[in-house]
Amino acid sequence: MNILIKDVWIVSQDASRKQFKGSVYVEDEVIQEVRQEPIAVEADYEINGEGKVLLPGLINTHTHIPMTLLRGYGDDMVLEEWLKTRIWPVEAKLDRESISAGTDLGLLEMIFSGTTCFADMYFFEDTIAERTIKAGLRGFLGFSLIDFGTPEFKPEELFSECEKFIRRWKGKKGLVTPVVAPHSSYTCSPETLERCAEISEEHDVLVHTHCSETQHEVSDVQRRYGVRPVEQFKKTGLLNKKTLFAHCGWITKGEVREIARAGAGVSHNPVSNMKLATGGFTPIPELVESNATVGLGTDGAASNNTLDLFETMKFAALIHKHHRWDPCVAPAQQVLDFATIGGAKALHMEDKLGSVEEGKLADLIILDFEKPHLKPCYDVVSHLVYAARGCDVYATIVNGKPLMIDRRVLTMNYEKVLWSAEEQGLRLTGE
Amino acid sequence: MNILIKDVWIVSQDASRKQFKGSVYVEDEVIQEVRQEPIAVEADYEINGEGKVLLPGLINTHTHIPMTLLRGYGDDMVLEEWLKTRIWPVEAKLDRESISAGTDLGLLEMIFSGTTCFADMYFFEDTIAERTIKAGLRGFLGFSLIDFGTPEFKPEELFSECEKFIRRWKGKKGLVTPVVAPHSSYTCSPETLERCAEISEEHDVLVHTHCSETQHEVSDVQRRYGVRPVEQFKKTGLLNKKTLFAHCGWITKGEVREIARAGAGVSHNPVSNMKLATGGFTPIPELVESNATVGLGTDGAASNNTLDLFETMKFAALIHKHHRWDPCVAPAQQVLDFATIGGAKALHMEDKLGSVEEGKLADLIILDFEKPHLKPCYDVVSHLVYAARGCDVYATIVNGKPLMIDRRVLTMNYEKVLWSAEEQGLRLTGE
Repeated sequence: MNILIKDVWIVSQDASRKQFKGSVYVEDEVIQEVRQEPIAVEADYEINGEGKVLLPGLINTHTHIPMTLLRGYGDDMVLEEWLKTRIWPVEAKLDRESISAGTDLGLLEMIFSGTTCFADMYFFEDTIAERTIKAGLRGFLGFSLIDFGTPEFKPEELFSECEKFIRRWKGKKGLVTPVVAPHSSYTCSPETLERCAEISEEHDVLVHTHCSETQHEVSDVQRRYGVRPVEQFKKTGLLNKKTLFAHCGWITKGEVREIARAGAGVSHNPVSNMKLATGGFTPIPELVESNATVGLGTDGAASNNTLDLFETMKFAALIHKHHRWDPCVAPAQQVLDFATIGGAKALHMEDKLGSVEEGKLADLIILDFEKPHLKPCYDVVSHLVYAARGCDVYATIVNGKPLMIDRRVLTMNYEKVLWSAEEQGLRLTGE
Repeated sequence: MNILIKDVWIVSQDASRKQFKGSVYVEDEVIQEVRQEPIAVEADYEINGEGKVLLPGLINTHTHIPMTLLRGYGDDMVLEEWLKTRIWPVEAKLDRESISAGTDLGLLEMIFSGTTCFADMYFFEDTIAERTIKAGLRGFLGFSLIDFGTPEFKPEELFSECEKFIRRWKGKKGLVTPVVAPHSSYTCSPETLERCAEISEEHDVLVHTHCSETQHEVSDVQRRYGVRPVEQFKKTGLLNKKTLFAHCGWITKGEVREIARAGAGVSHNPVSNMKLATGGFTPIPELVESNATVGLGTDGAASNNTLDLFETMKFAALIHKHHRWDPCVAPAQQVLDFATIGGAKALHMEDKLGSVEEGKLADLIILDFEKPHLKPCYDVVSHLVYAARGCDVYATIVNGKPLMIDRRVLTMNYEKVLWSAEEQGLRLTGE
């Protein structure tokens, strides 16, 4: 299959961060040509890019896709109450059917809001993998390990099932990459974390975990193990370039340097942190200054309540200006970098994803800029961060395949996905 | 003209805050019937509300509409530099043509994002009034007074021109209501503020002004006049129920009580405050506890960079949770109230606007909820604040007249507005 996008404004996100009007030619999974001159070729899909902007697909570095089914099921609540009275009772009832419905809804929302790749951690990850491949998105799917077991597996089954999961999906040239996902340093014993480190080493897979999301978590880990979460991960062999830490809202400047030195990645999830009022905040300026790898995540829709990374970019750009009383902090280009090349680095895919360059995998999105809220346009990057929304995405292409063009999805049954989500949501919540 | 909306989910925003499936019948400017039963009537416009949500049109209590032309013209800059190198040089070049283009763009964006009424303060307000009437929105238009004069009038002309403006637009049963808008207590002398108080009294018009937006402003006023802005307004006769204060980011708890006791309104503009990094923050919980009147504003698109009040609602709901480390602060229903009935109160229109009730003016919006990011739906109000965007607005009705249906504007030339905005923007900025 091949795709030609003509006369489009290209936000390359390559090392030069150059922008220009040109054409992009995609064949098989790869970006074959990026040119200012017209490209003369017959293509299965030809997209006229007049008035449109092309950029690398956005990368969501922290989410729990099936939880899209719990969007808005309990807001404005204290975390413990929310988990105990809403989330956990529902999660206990999860099965393949509800996981499929929630995953499909999340995949559809991502396709419609310009996310082409996501790092997930949840339960029934095999089902999530199957749905992801069917929809055509790119997923780094984390098999969750948590000491008291999951809705899917008993504690004693977790390690062997995790390795089966990895063997099942590893190495297959395709859309799904398996990841080990110990839940956190307060829900996983040192032994569990060490075993995850071994599995990551043995199978050469990434590790995705929650780190220092809340003050309570930090003091809890400190009380039980005498060290803060980052140190606990270090002690158990999980502070290295293979690790992706979600949140890091309560890390010290010293921990920032440790994370940067180790080459670990950080997923910044500002909307979820603000909605759950976790207080502390990811020290973005310090992380950037230390050359740490930073990506952006939405977290699950249950605490966001969307999967729209354009919205997340605006929150990320504004919250740090507000915090530091400095409008120059977290400028638009830096935040767009987090959502593209930064996320690619966090997933060790910077050679294949995160920019519009010949030879890279064709994960691309096209936005329609002919809209009132995107006029006039003095600076495309400013509009991408401060004015655009997921609903401005005109086309979404993943691995060289168009998933959505002109707000029409090509790989899923739109009505059926919405309907199943309602049905399964009501079944789970008994409402 | 009459309009019938059938089988729609109605978020009444009346005193009971009740929601129900029903029908709404609009004739002339007024909501004639709101019923759970079908309404049998022939209508010029009949809208099928299946899968849709109807609510009162959103009210933007602080903006500078023509500045929509400066969207994204200088971001991530220190306020002084931004004003001196970007905003002021452009404002010096303003004329009726550019004001018309910027106003039309802002009006079009508001129509497409569900805002039906706005409180403006800028220059060339007569031109803004004409464009507002043509587009069909409801405007509370503030004639700006500032001691060093405006691009339109010399200092000595301001008061007489202001009174002419009021006489021109006052009392006409229609979409435009004149307002007196002294810029602030640091750009207007006590004499100017006193004169504005007299004009407001004499003509029975509202006063719209900036109050305690930045720490610098507060200390500046304190240094020059020995009192903080709120006290300065009080001394000059501008702390009363006719006053609408924009921002109030740097007010004390005592000032909160003063404002509440005086019955003055507050426009909370979280996105602009965060983007400009004004630091202090409108004390929403305290204002609510004191029963102060609170509305939501976007401020000008130059510092936002949109006019989307749905986005503003989410920022308002999240920033206070984050500030207070309390997810229960600024719950969804409260924030929706700010954007509807709260704004109506701030404009002394609570008897005519802000809720879906028989006898009120028909300023209504309808959202399409059949979208991935609005599924499943456990709580419509949660979705309106935490998940919906301006682009989910299916129809916008003002004063009983449909301005947009099914994302097609009926009162403006879409292409011409976008094109003129680009042209005038480039002309003004010389880019």
